[in-house]
Amino acid sequence: MLYIPAHALFDRPMTSRFAAALLASVLVTAAPAADPPATPADAVSRAPAAAWRAIPADELLVMTIEGKRRIVIQLAPRFDPGHVANIRTLAKAGWWDGTSINRVQDNYVVQWGDVTERKPLPPGMPTDLKPDYARPLDEFRSGLVRLPYPDSYAPATGFVDGWPVAMDGQAAWLPHCYSFVGVGRNNAPDAGTGAELYAVIGHAPRQLDRNIAVVGRVIEGMASLAGLPRGTGEIGFYTAQEHKVPILSARLASDLPPAERPAFEVMDVTSSSFADYLRLRANRKDDFYIRPAGGVDLCNVPVPVRPAR
Amino acid sequence: MLYIPAHALFDRPMTSRFAAALLASVLVTAAPAADPPATPADAVSRAPAAAWRAIPADELLVMTIEGKRRIVIQLAPRFDPGHVANIRTLAKAGWWDGTSINRVQDNYVVQWGDVTERKPLPPGMPTDLKPDYARPLDEFRSGLVRLPYPDSYAPATGFVDGWPVAMDGQAAWLPHCYSFVGVGRNNAPDAGTGAELYAVIGHAPRQLDRNIAVVGRVIEGMASLAGLPRGTGEIGFYTAQEHKVPILSARLASDLPPAERPAFEVMDVTSSSFADYLRLRANRKDDFYIRPAGGVDLCNVPVPVRPAR
Repeated sequence: MLYIPAHALFDRPMTSRFAAALLASVLVTAAPAADPPATPADAVSRAPAAAWRAIPADELLVMTIEGKRRIVIQLAPRFDPGHVANIRTLAKAGWWDGTSINRVQDNYVVQWGDVTERKPLPPGMPTDLKPDYARPLDEFRSGLVRLPYPDSYAPATGFVDGWPVAMDGQAAWLPHCYSFVGVGRNNAPDAGTGAELYAVIGHAPRQLDRNIAVVGRVIEGMASLAGLPRGTGEIGFYTAQEHKVPILSARLASDLPPAERPAFEVMDVTSSSFADYLRLRANRKDDFYIRPAGGVDLCNVPVPVRPAR
Repeated sequence: MLYIPAHALFDRPMTSRFAAALLASVLVTAAPAADPPATPADAVSRAPAAAWRAIPADELLVMTIEGKRRIVIQLAPRFDPGHVANIRTLAKAGWWDGTSINRVQDNYVVQWGDVTERKPLPPGMPTDLKPDYARPLDEFRSGLVRLPYPDSYAPATGFVDGWPVAMDGQAAWLPHCYSFVGVGRNNAPDAGTGAELYAVIGHAPRQLDRNIAVVGRVIEGMASLAGLPRGTGEIGFYTAQEHKVPILSARLASDLPPAERPAFEVMDVTSSSFADYLRLRANRKDDFYIRPAGGVDLCNVPVPVRPAR
């Protein structure tokens, strides 16, 4: 089964009876592949095998929370090698096992880690990481695809190596889009260790870009995180009376037994399939959409990811 | 107690122990009011009474869902008089009482109404509304405050009469920001009646702008809607086995007994308080934020709303 962001499939607040009828018609009358794709979902479903890239198993953090719900986070070592190295160290040490999700702030973040902040970190793990939240643009010029629409936060945006990027003339950085994962920290110049992480569950808080380390994105299980009850304490922390959600385990996929190891592919952003997908995300026009926007913002073009075939 | 979007108060993924310490210090050492405000929260908390406008009671739809959770929606009659008239008719008829929330699609919408789509509408209520999703810009030139940053979807954006607006040279329309409420419909040219409504619970799906009617925004109870379990049916509809969330009642505040009537105020977007708030949303710089964005997108400047004093 194809894994795409659900809202790319039918992103329209249609009525329920109409949705059922439309889905039935789609199942019966799929357009011949020779026609150009008409929707972002078409572009994704028709992408050939060559348009997909396997995600390395040591770039997948597999977290299991209460209820055996699985959260899979794709790590971004090219954008933040220091924090990703720490996250790998923490996963190998089983450091998050027995910790919890401690904060759920509506339209903002879900945050997890050791709520006591007294659990010893793995010996030798660096804790003095530098607050360098952008990388030299030169590292990303190969394979860079520009997004040709204005952005409210950065001089330029685009996609590279499966990731959205914001850019100025010198540097590139990961944006705080929905589902993206960052590193909680204290006041500057502290950069956090990677032991306390958060995922964005609301409108992209792009004001955090270049102010905090972005280390990856949730590619499976977002609904389990975003659907958690909001904490009623200050800034959404669960109070002593509320139920912190236990983290049962967090491991790199590469350290799991083969039978338990998830595998994912991400769309090649230089492929013609991605070009179709991007164009259609910016220009919806079909039986439902009557007025194409003629533009789209960086966080509304989630790069398609699917389970490996 | 001041009601502002929680993330405007401390929008930073700080660690939990640090948050407690910071909150304690804020309570003890509030800056003298003579200093310029340093954060968006400062700008809101210092706004004088003259910077606030009462929201008329017939522009508040008060919905109670299972668990006696209250949802308050501010209606926008200036932007869509036809659908708002229908919503008032439906509320006065008690039409939503006994219906349910039927769809929760992650990073997209919560949708409610009559899941059978067979409940008779109030007699005489128009059902052939026109698909006019924008208004003449001339209607909004008075009191219009421009947002001086580029937008990915519209030639211009700003604020007027307490609402964010997107604009071109001729027209103005409400954007699909987080918490905004729209009217479910079938394929074009159907424009929906207003009986099936949705609220945005994810990154702003601005591709829907001018494709569907936006009629208001949730100003109380968003956490109750956004924290609902996601539906596992197609496009997030609850399946027959899942629990649809009952709507106990939905009434205009003006039709409630005075003791049960909520009252809210919205910030005057032409006030200097709003100018401060806007500037600070675009330029966070303090002990936590080291790099101001120098810009902000329309949906990341929620117009402050608070319970009336």
